[in-house]
Amino acid sequence: MWDKRDDMVVHGTDPYNAEPPRTALADNSLTPTDTFYSRNHATVPRIEPSHWRLRVDGLVDQPLELTLQDLVDRFEHRTLVATMQCAGNRRSALLAVRGIPGEDPWGAGATSTAAWTGVSLRDVLRAADVSAEAHHVAFEAPDVTDLADPTQVYGSSIPVKKAMAEEVLLAWQMNGEDLPSLHGGPVRVVVPGYIGARSVKWVVRVTALLEPSENYFQATAYRLLPPEGEPAPGAGISLGPFNLTSDILEPDDGATLPVGESQVTGYALAGGDRAIARVDVSLDQGRTWVQAELDAEIGPWAWRLWRTRLILPEGRTCITVRAWDSGGSTQPESPAQMWNPKGYGNTSWGHVTVHAL
Amino acid sequence: MWDKRDDMVVHGTDPYNAEPPRTALADNSLTPTDTFYSRNHATVPRIEPSHWRLRVDGLVDQPLELTLQDLVDRFEHRTLVATMQCAGNRRSALLAVRGIPGEDPWGAGATSTAAWTGVSLRDVLRAADVSAEAHHVAFEAPDVTDLADPTQVYGSSIPVKKAMAEEVLLAWQMNGEDLPSLHGGPVRVVVPGYIGARSVKWVVRVTALLEPSENYFQATAYRLLPPEGEPAPGAGISLGPFNLTSDILEPDDGATLPVGESQVTGYALAGGDRAIARVDVSLDQGRTWVQAELDAEIGPWAWRLWRTRLILPEGRTCITVRAWDSGGSTQPESPAQMWNPKGYGNTSWGHVTVHAL
Repeated sequence: MWDKRDDMVVHGTDPYNAEPPRTALADNSLTPTDTFYSRNHATVPRIEPSHWRLRVDGLVDQPLELTLQDLVDRFEHRTLVATMQCAGNRRSALLAVRGIPGEDPWGAGATSTAAWTGVSLRDVLRAADVSAEAHHVAFEAPDVTDLADPTQVYGSSIPVKKAMAEEVLLAWQMNGEDLPSLHGGPVRVVVPGYIGARSVKWVVRVTALLEPSENYFQATAYRLLPPEGEPAPGAGISLGPFNLTSDILEPDDGATLPVGESQVTGYALAGGDRAIARVDVSLDQGRTWVQAELDAEIGPWAWRLWRTRLILPEGRTCITVRAWDSGGSTQPESPAQMWNPKGYGNTSWGHVTVHAL
Repeated sequence: MWDKRDDMVVHGTDPYNAEPPRTALADNSLTPTDTFYSRNHATVPRIEPSHWRLRVDGLVDQPLELTLQDLVDRFEHRTLVATMQCAGNRRSALLAVRGIPGEDPWGAGATSTAAWTGVSLRDVLRAADVSAEAHHVAFEAPDVTDLADPTQVYGSSIPVKKAMAEEVLLAWQMNGEDLPSLHGGPVRVVVPGYIGARSVKWVVRVTALLEPSENYFQATAYRLLPPEGEPAPGAGISLGPFNLTSDILEPDDGATLPVGESQVTGYALAGGDRAIARVDVSLDQGRTWVQAELDAEIGPWAWRLWRTRLILPEGRTCITVRAWDSGGSTQPESPAQMWNPKGYGNTSWGHVTVHAL
């Protein structure tokens, strides 16, 4: 049905939710489209590019209705590399602490990086003469989902300051090819540096607002609650910008390897305007660390791959990673201390356990 | 010699280094001037306000030499509230992990908050017609210190993007009164949201540069090294913007209290453009938490005080605090995991141990 590698870990078929094995992400800073994780809340809409329309409304002086051809013809094209990461990435480590009913057990693979081509949302908002009173910009898709309460289309919003930053795209290409419907084609929003939930796929409406969107997925879902909290509109901390994180991509968790020297590879991802400054790897649960080598940066909105060679002793070894950013901030240690009722935002140290023979 | 409360914890008399007891910070969001911590690298210079001059040079088309009267007369006055925090605040908890020779054992009190009045550095840089090529802005003081290698004046630099932000001040007042020499009078730099080391006191020179300052305190000191690292120019992560942190201000560590209900008060401080979203307090080392009440915000560059009432059982209790910011990021748990050779940047959970009778 879609161009997907055979070994995807499928959490559900309709809505389709799947992640690649972590090792599939280790080969390249850019994730092939058939390997890119997929997070959906309803059946994937199939929209003919010639039928697609984008409405731009709300606090704008000049409401617009645009075709894909309008986007292509009327605005400057931009291509940038950005990492997407689901707020539920590495929920599995939170589940090991305490159950999270009704949420999929995403592992390490709900994150991927692609080159995205489209136009800056900013240019479209300017063409609509967005009002200085607007404080948020909302996005709506046509996929109606009963995962929301009440049943509604998928939507999100971002602060206008971010919406007017050059890097936020209305994108119709991924890795140099037309955006597949599975990844939001004909056109999706790409909000670099924000959790994947804000990068609305199949976007059909952009609305300038005074307040954040009241859509269920902005107001109630994707919020960090205290352990005893209950989801409710406005409860908890609304997730948006990435927080510093890192993980191991190779070897796989549970892998059997030869005793002796072994290469370890992974990624680190910084939050806000910070960059990755240092990545530490430990074979003794954080008692001692070695510094990994960082691959070249591939852009301010992308993860940074790192690698190191370690000597594995015979038997079972837990390999741990943590990152430090350019401001000297580092990750929390323990998923137990990050547990929350919906299982979001696990940015604790990354681990894999391997067996050397 | 200076207007200082009697119970300051004095780490050294020349250079004078002292912090208030933590409980002295709990009374008010604004720290009285006689309670404000003091971090110096040499003898405090005594500069007559009428003798003070500021040179503005480097990558500027119009070098300036300004008197205090020039600052007062020629530029718009601004007052803002900003928290200062020494990069060595809470080094004592790192020292308990492993020794840090040659560095003072700062406790919880190397942080304070004041209202600062002066002019935006930006307005002065614009008057000097700063070049678009400048990437950093350096500050120099006249206090020569042999704590540097080689002996030199104290200096720092900040990125030009920060230097051109409205909030960075050349300040001559603190809490509505002339800035005392102990706190940098006649004029100091105030870089809100950055470690105290960048807010150069007694500033006499502002220089626009291509690269960060080569001054010892920018190039070699105030950098986060890996545990086995050695200080050297450019080694480690240069500290600048605050990282999320929090601490308990009352009760004091080691206090004896009655069994039963007790008020706990403290502060939380966010990094970058984030705000404090939640503060958790624990009586069982982080197994369970209650959410504290947050005092009103007093500005984007200031700490946020919080308070809660807890029931203390008889005997010894460790009270723990951690904060979450508006992006859902939280603090690392353990000072052992933050240990670094110069003892900077301890933003792990805050603790006090009390005895209830």
